Amino acid sequence: MTAPATPAYRRLSVEERRTQLLDAALGLFAHRAPEDVSLDDVAAAAGVSRPLVYRYFSGGKQQLYEDALRSAADELELCFTEPPVGPPTERLGRVLDRYLAFVDQHDTGFSALLRGGSVCETSRTTAIVDEVRRAAAEQILLHLGTSGTGGTDGTTGTGDADRTSAPAASGARLRMLVRTWIAAVESASLIWLDEEKRPPAGELRDWLVDHLIALLVVTAATDEETAAAVGALVAYEHPDGPVGTLARRVLPLVNAAAHLP
Amino acid sequence: MTAPATPAYRRLSVEERRTQLLDAALGLFAHRAPEDVSLDDVAAAAGVSRPLVYRYFSGGKQQLYEDALRSAADELELCFTEPPVGPPTERLGRVLDRYLAFVDQHDTGFSALLRGGSVCETSRTTAIVDEVRRAAAEQILLHLGTSGTGGTDGTTGTGDADRTSAPAASGARLRMLVRTWIAAVESASLIWLDEEKRPPAGELRDWLVDHLIALLVVTAATDEETAAAVGALVAYEHPDGPVGTLARRVLPLVNAAAHLP
Repeated sequence: MTAPATPAYRRLSVEERRTQLLDAALGLFAHRAPEDVSLDDVAAAAGVSRPLVYRYFSGGKQQLYEDALRSAADELELCFTEPPVGPPTERLGRVLDRYLAFVDQHDTGFSALLRGGSVCETSRTTAIVDEVRRAAAEQILLHLGTSGTGGTDGTTGTGDADRTSAPAASGARLRMLVRTWIAAVESASLIWLDEEKRPPAGELRDWLVDHLIALLVVTAATDEETAAAVGALVAYEHPDGPVGTLARRVLPLVNAAAHLP
Repeated sequence: MTAPATPAYRRLSVEERRTQLLDAALGLFAHRAPEDVSLDDVAAAAGVSRPLVYRYFSGGKQQLYEDALRSAADELELCFTEPPVGPPTERLGRVLDRYLAFVDQHDTGFSALLRGGSVCETSRTTAIVDEVRRAAAEQILLHLGTSGTGGTDGTTGTGDADRTSAPAASGARLRMLVRTWIAAVESASLIWLDEEKRPPAGELRDWLVDHLIALLVVTAATDEETAAAVGALVAYEHPDGPVGTLARRVLPLVNAAAHLP
């Protein structure tokens, strides 16, 4: 297995080798709980020796897990980027499609990570997960036209926006809305994985889009800033898009509730 | 400190002593990260010796933490119980008031527990947290009139309802809705604690009630079962309650969105 003639041992630079080992690790961590992945498994998956894995990841499995998580987090954050043009619900739909494809491809590892309680979970791994959540929130706020301008203290454009203490700052409700919706998306993803990936991803995506629309509309009812953001976004929507369709569907119910006997 | 004349040493039965130590531990774990609580602190808070704490909790701090968490979980689950009479949003409001008071009283410990990454977090602690989430979901489903009847496999009335594999069972969408809303409530609670408990608890409660109403209404638009549950609940609402008020507030926006140019 360590014979110098093995092709995997030749011509790889340090960086290429590192990437190869990380890819192998990520492939394993994606489909097993971290407890069920050993360095031997990673070595076997990459077709290299165990000592070679240790040479690149001297911190052992924990380091490999954290580096693989870092790599997965970078990949996931890329999914969130979407040009701010066209109907906002279509932009959101595309981001959710990429996100759900990622969840699908990393199912077991995603579940293990977010459910918590793993021996591999540390303050470093939770910091990486929180960073991904903040990146997602920032992207949505960007499309809502509030990123970087949400707070009066000038700090909310940074990645630490949601950790700064500006409770009464403008945009606070909108930021809370976005972050709670992201928590709801995570929760829905875990349920989806538990229930054998049903309903189909497209149906789940549509429901999550509807969920955010609903949350924006009810929050707009009591928060001026959200109302302004919603008003601006609605203008970009097609009559037959998710906003118009949902509105026509719920209109009779809202109308009845508005005139309760 | 260990003199037999100390009142705390007298007349306590084993169970009383255990409860006293647990209460002292819970008081500390409520306001500090578990890392920042030592057995000495617990002994001092209870006014007893360290060996006495060990005698009752031979598993040391980890056992004390898990037992305190168990005790807090039982307390929290009690908060969720509400008689199924009167306007449903008023019932929900009372449950949320009790829940937010609990979050307020256990702020630092609540944050540390739900943020994850603590050395005290194990598969046992995450199982306790999941059990509380399931209990909350069961209570809401009960008020929605679907508990115990949600699945065609007859298993969904149990505490393990959401772990059974019945993806296409009736009530699946309603259960997903309830569980994602609970995740959103948790997330909002953490943000609330981060932001120095602002907005006031009552305002946060109203927003969380609106959030669930919104989620029920948009889900009712595409799911018959949810539509039936919503229709039955609306009949119990007062015209000036949260449902009617919210409906009148969002009606112009929904009407405009339903007739996009």
